[in-house]
Amino acid sequence: MIYNIGLCQFRPTLLKKQKNLDTMWKMVEGIKADLIVFPELSTSGYVFNSRDEVFSIADDFEKSDTTAMFLELSKENDTSYVIGFPEKSDNFLYNSCMLINPDGSKYLYRKTHLFNEEKQWFEPGNLGFVVAKGKKEVNIGLMICFDWMFPESARTLMLKGATIIAHPSALVLPWCQQAMLTRSLENRIFSITANRIGTEINGEKEFLFTGMSQAVSPLGEILFRLEKDDEKVQIVEIDTDKANEKNPTPFNNIITDRKPEYYI
Amino acid sequence: MIYNIGLCQFRPTLLKKQKNLDTMWKMVEGIKADLIVFPELSTSGYVFNSRDEVFSIADDFEKSDTTAMFLELSKENDTSYVIGFPEKSDNFLYNSCMLINPDGSKYLYRKTHLFNEEKQWFEPGNLGFVVAKGKKEVNIGLMICFDWMFPESARTLMLKGATIIAHPSALVLPWCQQAMLTRSLENRIFSITANRIGTEINGEKEFLFTGMSQAVSPLGEILFRLEKDDEKVQIVEIDTDKANEKNPTPFNNIITDRKPEYYI
Repeated sequence: MIYNIGLCQFRPTLLKKQKNLDTMWKMVEGIKADLIVFPELSTSGYVFNSRDEVFSIADDFEKSDTTAMFLELSKENDTSYVIGFPEKSDNFLYNSCMLINPDGSKYLYRKTHLFNEEKQWFEPGNLGFVVAKGKKEVNIGLMICFDWMFPESARTLMLKGATIIAHPSALVLPWCQQAMLTRSLENRIFSITANRIGTEINGEKEFLFTGMSQAVSPLGEILFRLEKDDEKVQIVEIDTDKANEKNPTPFNNIITDRKPEYYI
Repeated sequence: MIYNIGLCQFRPTLLKKQKNLDTMWKMVEGIKADLIVFPELSTSGYVFNSRDEVFSIADDFEKSDTTAMFLELSKENDTSYVIGFPEKSDNFLYNSCMLINPDGSKYLYRKTHLFNEEKQWFEPGNLGFVVAKGKKEVNIGLMICFDWMFPESARTLMLKGATIIAHPSALVLPWCQQAMLTRSLENRIFSITANRIGTEINGEKEFLFTGMSQAVSPLGEILFRLEKDDEKVQIVEIDTDKANEKNPTPFNNIITDRKPEYYI
């Protein structure tokens, strides 16, 4: 099936939720696609100094203005969105993303593998890896940033039936973009890594985010890769059927060739 | 610990075992290292047309002249070797490799994930993934060629304690060398991919092997990579302690951060 997928690479402003929501709305306004992915913690920025800071800007997935806005935007543009945001659930905080569909359905994933100081603010995800239906019933697998380091993340999403991995990110290490080619190839699925850009400063801390957001084919080919400082939306047309081709040779199939009895 | 690792990239001649053994002997003669890896099916060549062909050149691991020769060579050069060879055990054939040590110890691995027509000649490996002691008690993990496509192979070897992956190969697809950077990085271990070179013809079939054998660090850095048609032995000095550094940040450890309860 022909499917238009892409991402929005931008520079969130730390602790300015309304400003970030306005930016995201404007960047995708009028762009009709099938799936657009925003970065990790898009609504809040990334470089926190305390749990209180995160709590002050975190959203309840079921009843927040962030969820409401993306439900409206999704219907208006007839596009599914994946958005990274800090989630508040009772007194717990999660580094989460939501999949929002034009038909009003919505799904939640909580980052499984927390990176560095995130462990000081967030609980590790307790929902497992989520594959959910996006627009046109396509299976979207959700993972966030550092989940890439663990091959089990993308593997689990593929085995749960994902056609496309949506991968909101806020990358500071240099390895992910290249490694995601292997993640797509070893699982024969599409991946969309939506990274943020910019230098973010909070007190003593200064982080530079690496941009280079990309979409990758099931053969590990780069469909597009943005520059380090692009602020833009990029869309590419794919054929989702390519993710059904799991046979590298007539004798091989990457699913049925697995030998779980020998794996740890 | 300082450790000298490397590989021998060469062009085996199809179905000429003694010629191949002579070539291998000569190529490493007088080279004292800690570990040298030879390609997949080094002693036999690769492009078979029948199970009988394979059977005619296959070796019994316990009592073959191939094993005997490498035991002698290993003692003479004070070097551990990993050698890919077709193995005969009773009436079964396996695509195997042996680890041979200067102290006379020897270990066997049988390829778990068979590639393409190999399934017509060989049984899938039934030993699981093997980590065994090489020279100086360093943990050597064994995998063969197409095992690279399955992230579970290298993952299992790391979780079983491998410091260095020895990876005899006969590569015809274009992806492995790049993907092995991810395999080393995601597991923080060294890897040595010893590929063969040359065009091999048997009847209607013609295969071109891609060379570019390489050694990779636990950070996914290429320590060396040969050319597509080099016929040579290459050695590099490493510090095996680098494979113990499993912490990408002060808050992260790639082993203890795993969440097997969410993995398939």
